[in-house]
Amino acid sequence: MTTAPSHPSLLPTLPGSAYVDPAAHAAECEHVLEASWFCAVASADLPDAGSFRTVTVGRESVLLTRSRDRQVRAFFNVCRHRGARLCTEESGTVRRSFQCPYHAWTYGLDGSLVSAPHLSSMPGLDRTAHGLRTIAVREWLGYVWVCLADDPPSFAETVEDVVGERLGSREAVHAYGIEGLSLARRITYDVAANWKLVVENFMECYHCATIHPELTEVLPEFAGGYAAQTNVGLGAVMGTEGFTVDGSAGLGRLPGVTDEQDRRYFAVTIAPQVFVNLVPDHVIVHRMFPLAVDRTVIECDWLVDPAVVAAGTDVSRSVELFDRVNRQDFDACERCQHGMSSRVYADGGVLVPTEHHIGAFHEWVRTKLGRSDPAGGLSAVPEAHEVA
Amino acid sequence: MTTAPSHPSLLPTLPGSAYVDPAAHAAECEHVLEASWFCAVASADLPDAGSFRTVTVGRESVLLTRSRDRQVRAFFNVCRHRGARLCTEESGTVRRSFQCPYHAWTYGLDGSLVSAPHLSSMPGLDRTAHGLRTIAVREWLGYVWVCLADDPPSFAETVEDVVGERLGSREAVHAYGIEGLSLARRITYDVAANWKLVVENFMECYHCATIHPELTEVLPEFAGGYAAQTNVGLGAVMGTEGFTVDGSAGLGRLPGVTDEQDRRYFAVTIAPQVFVNLVPDHVIVHRMFPLAVDRTVIECDWLVDPAVVAAGTDVSRSVELFDRVNRQDFDACERCQHGMSSRVYADGGVLVPTEHHIGAFHEWVRTKLGRSDPAGGLSAVPEAHEVA
Amino acid sequence: MTTAPSHPSLLPTLPGSAYVDPAAHAAECEHVLEASWFCAVASADLPDAGSFRTVTVGRESVLLTRSRDRQVRAFFNVCRHRGARLCTEESGTVRRSFQCPYHAWTYGLDGSLVSAPHLSSMPGLDRTAHGLRTIAVREWLGYVWVCLADDPPSFAETVEDVVGERLGSREAVHAYGIEGLSLARRITYDVAANWKLVVENFMECYHCATIHPELTEVLPEFAGGYAAQTNVGLGAVMGTEGFTVDGSAGLGRLPGVTDEQDRRYFAVTIAPQVFVNLVPDHVIVHRMFPLAVDRTVIECDWLVDPAVVAAGTDVSRSVELFDRVNRQDFDACERCQHGMSSRVYADGGVLVPTEHHIGAFHEWVRTKLGRSDPAGGLSAVPEAHEVA
Repeated sequence: MTTAPSHPSLLPTLPGSAYVDPAAHAAECEHVLEASWFCAVASADLPDAGSFRTVTVGRESVLLTRSRDRQVRAFFNVCRHRGARLCTEESGTVRRSFQCPYHAWTYGLDGSLVSAPHLSSMPGLDRTAHGLRTIAVREWLGYVWVCLADDPPSFAETVEDVVGERLGSREAVHAYGIEGLSLARRITYDVAANWKLVVENFMECYHCATIHPELTEVLPEFAGGYAAQTNVGLGAVMGTEGFTVDGSAGLGRLPGVTDEQDRRYFAVTIAPQVFVNLVPDHVIVHRMFPLAVDRTVIECDWLVDPAVVAAGTDVSRSVELFDRVNRQDFDACERCQHGMSSRVYADGGVLVPTEHHIGAFHEWVRTKLGRSDPAGGLSAVPEAHEVA
Repeated sequence: MTTAPSHPSLLPTLPGSAYVDPAAHAAECEHVLEASWFCAVASADLPDAGSFRTVTVGRESVLLTRSRDRQVRAFFNVCRHRGARLCTEESGTVRRSFQCPYHAWTYGLDGSLVSAPHLSSMPGLDRTAHGLRTIAVREWLGYVWVCLADDPPSFAETVEDVVGERLGSREAVHAYGIEGLSLARRITYDVAANWKLVVENFMECYHCATIHPELTEVLPEFAGGYAAQTNVGLGAVMGTEGFTVDGSAGLGRLPGVTDEQDRRYFAVTIAPQVFVNLVPDHVIVHRMFPLAVDRTVIECDWLVDPAVVAAGTDVSRSVELFDRVNRQDFDACERCQHGMSSRVYADGGVLVPTEHHIGAFHEWVRTKLGRSDPAGGLSAVPEAHEVA
Repeated sequence: MTTAPSHPSLLPTLPGSAYVDPAAHAAECEHVLEASWFCAVASADLPDAGSFRTVTVGRESVLLTRSRDRQVRAFFNVCRHRGARLCTEESGTVRRSFQCPYHAWTYGLDGSLVSAPHLSSMPGLDRTAHGLRTIAVREWLGYVWVCLADDPPSFAETVEDVVGERLGSREAVHAYGIEGLSLARRITYDVAANWKLVVENFMECYHCATIHPELTEVLPEFAGGYAAQTNVGLGAVMGTEGFTVDGSAGLGRLPGVTDEQDRRYFAVTIAPQVFVNLVPDHVIVHRMFPLAVDRTVIECDWLVDPAVVAAGTDVSRSVELFDRVNRQDFDACERCQHGMSSRVYADGGVLVPTEHHIGAFHEWVRTKLGRSDPAGGLSAVPEAHEVA
């Protein structure tokens, strides 16, 4: 029906089927979500030796735990004997091992098989080969990142460099000292939309004037829709005293934040599923958990200086600003999801000039899926410079 | 298992898969529901300029609205920019345009793009080519009919002539002055059955003696099961004073109803999804909305003389008769749905002589799907003469 | 990922897809559940002429009824006319026939068509050919067994001999006089797991020490995990006074139970869906109804001497023991179901030595599906000797 965009200022999007076809989602699980570095939990979610968390990455349940050497390890949450889910709790603490509640196969915090009934009848059984299947893991920026691929891509190139390029240098993000911040609030959103709609929404500000009245009050240039795309390393300038729902004063500048970073908002998308928002007095991190072609759970953390928590300072006006932004955005994503299955969107929609960089995200997805068109016109698209 | 009917008086039905296979439903959406004239809403549901309604036709959300020139227009309810559902409300009124709540692309009541942020960066953009995708529309008998096909079939031949042939003349239906009637009651039924079962049920009266005690009291010949099939233009004769649940007097003959039409009941099926029931003092119109292979929503309207509404006359006994008939019928359809997936019904069931005209409906469906068997025995089947 | 088990004492299981793929379940419905003798209801559920029950066997609704000659008959629960489900009630009693509530086609207790409206217009219609489709039926051990196949396998070989081989003789089971026992309690469990996980669970005792504290108290050897596999005809010796949740005295030895059978527990698996548990004072029968690839309903009957019921004896401690065992087992099965879709289980898990006989069940399933590997190593596996 729809053909190529009829105007030179418009670029095409992905086709509607990419957002509604369960087979498309399965392919993205295999080649994108389970093949990329995926931000699973906060480091602080695993405070002690024996602390554990279970999360869903693509189609897999992943068990994360911290060992006595303080290293975080990640495993497929599946007993190697008869396939029972080892941990059914979302979080907790074990003393020194995980015991399958079915036949008592027991695994150490390093995943190796430490005991099982009747092991004497299986002399010489390789405890490592029959241990939990391990998953690559990294801690960075106060979060635990995992990659389910057998041969993970470079963490430096696909995560650290993405943040560095967006902020103008690899050092910039460290000024915020994210590893040392405290969790002030965590809100979980269950969104009836494909995860790529959430990414696309986060990448452009063309919608800001329409749905984000509070945000455009705080960041006046966002009302223009162009925002940070052309301002690598500069961010958006705040127009109010604080990054709060009513523009009132915030929580006090974080110790390491530079004068150049002060009174500015920076947003970074780390595909496929992380958004980092930096403001002078706090940091907001979104982790997406795509659970189905039309369902995405998003955990959003508000991180503040530990002194703020210690003092019992009221953070509600800071939290409420982006909580409102989130709800406004996710409503929009759900509204889009409805249209994806229409014949009108069979060949996709259009990207206006301020959205052209979303094309680079689409090309990234296509490349991951092995469907990139080498003759496509997207090579001329500048790198993605995301805005909220 | 089952083979061809083993008796010359029996005809075959469609196979069970036609009623349970999601792929069969998708094909019917494409080739039947989205390719035929489809009765969407009552004209009175769009009383004013700017009034709108959204309905589901096949797999598509359709937006209907009346413009300032009093014309009804219909559009795919999808923003041409990034595919958001334009209207999420079922009904309402706009002043002069529909604005997408995501990026504020704004469309006039004629569907053309009237404004969008940053339009100046897209100079010369074709406002019509990027307007809402339009859908063919007609008003007739006080209802708005749409066709989602690019090249709709003849309305006269596929709608008007069907009614005329059933009633014996194209003029007969107009005696009831349906366009001028008022809505006395609307009841919505959510039925766990394939839409074709509902059509088949409406087309035959072989079941009337079993499940419709009130109706056969009012229309005694229906107890025989043969009913109007052989009475083109005559209808079924009423045996009670009124077409009411207890046979008591009704609402008074409609002004245009002829002596030949008085004290008679006529029923018309307009495939794929409309039933019209004509009695001397009111008219009952069913519109079906097939939502899945095993789910059909039916809106049923009871239409009466405006004077009846103005006088505050009690219509409950008139409404209750067909409301009971509906519930009895839809229970039967749901009971049938259960059996469609059985191996016993893999090759379908049988039509007894008083049901043979249902074979013409089956042939109509097969023809629409491009699966008609030119050598099939259905050419000898008389045209469908439906009865309730 | 996983390859062949890396240790000579381990055998492979079925692959994970066998437990999660709807297509695999459809194949098992066709070739296993609908092709085997299937224990449908208790004979006592059909006490009188005209008593009926409806159950789901594979993908079909089956109607069971007792005729005036005391014979039980089984039919596909589908009207031969237009496919309506004939009986929607789960149980009840009819006088002499089943009448379809749609068009009043009426079938005798032998399934033949006895009347229908307008039969005179179908002269010479074959009442048997248009009667309900019959299903093979047998009564044995106080239960009604059906087989939906056109050409059922030998009941003696696939049911009676299986019980006889497990107990050491064909006579052994009859000592319990199951046909004459009374139903003391029936509990229905709705389990979110594939039916084969439930079979596998019932077949091995490697899990007993981990999840069945009450059972291993009553049957001490079960704590060792080896149990009855090597004890054909002997069963497990009770270590407590009674087979009760607290080991207290039970209900009194059943009249026919031999001294060799006294104070012993025997368990028999009759694939695909029956478990029989024999203890001196009562009998427990599980019938599984696999409803989807990931859902199985299990009806469990506790059968006791009629004198126990007549005396109003408290059976709760006897019932509670296996009710707890059931809940412990079904929790484990649900936990396994979660892991079946993981890539870690794509090639399945491993069977330890005390579970090797489960391989014979897997081979039985593969053979039924026509997928047996003639060169497979399972021919060396001893016959299954099941334990709870």
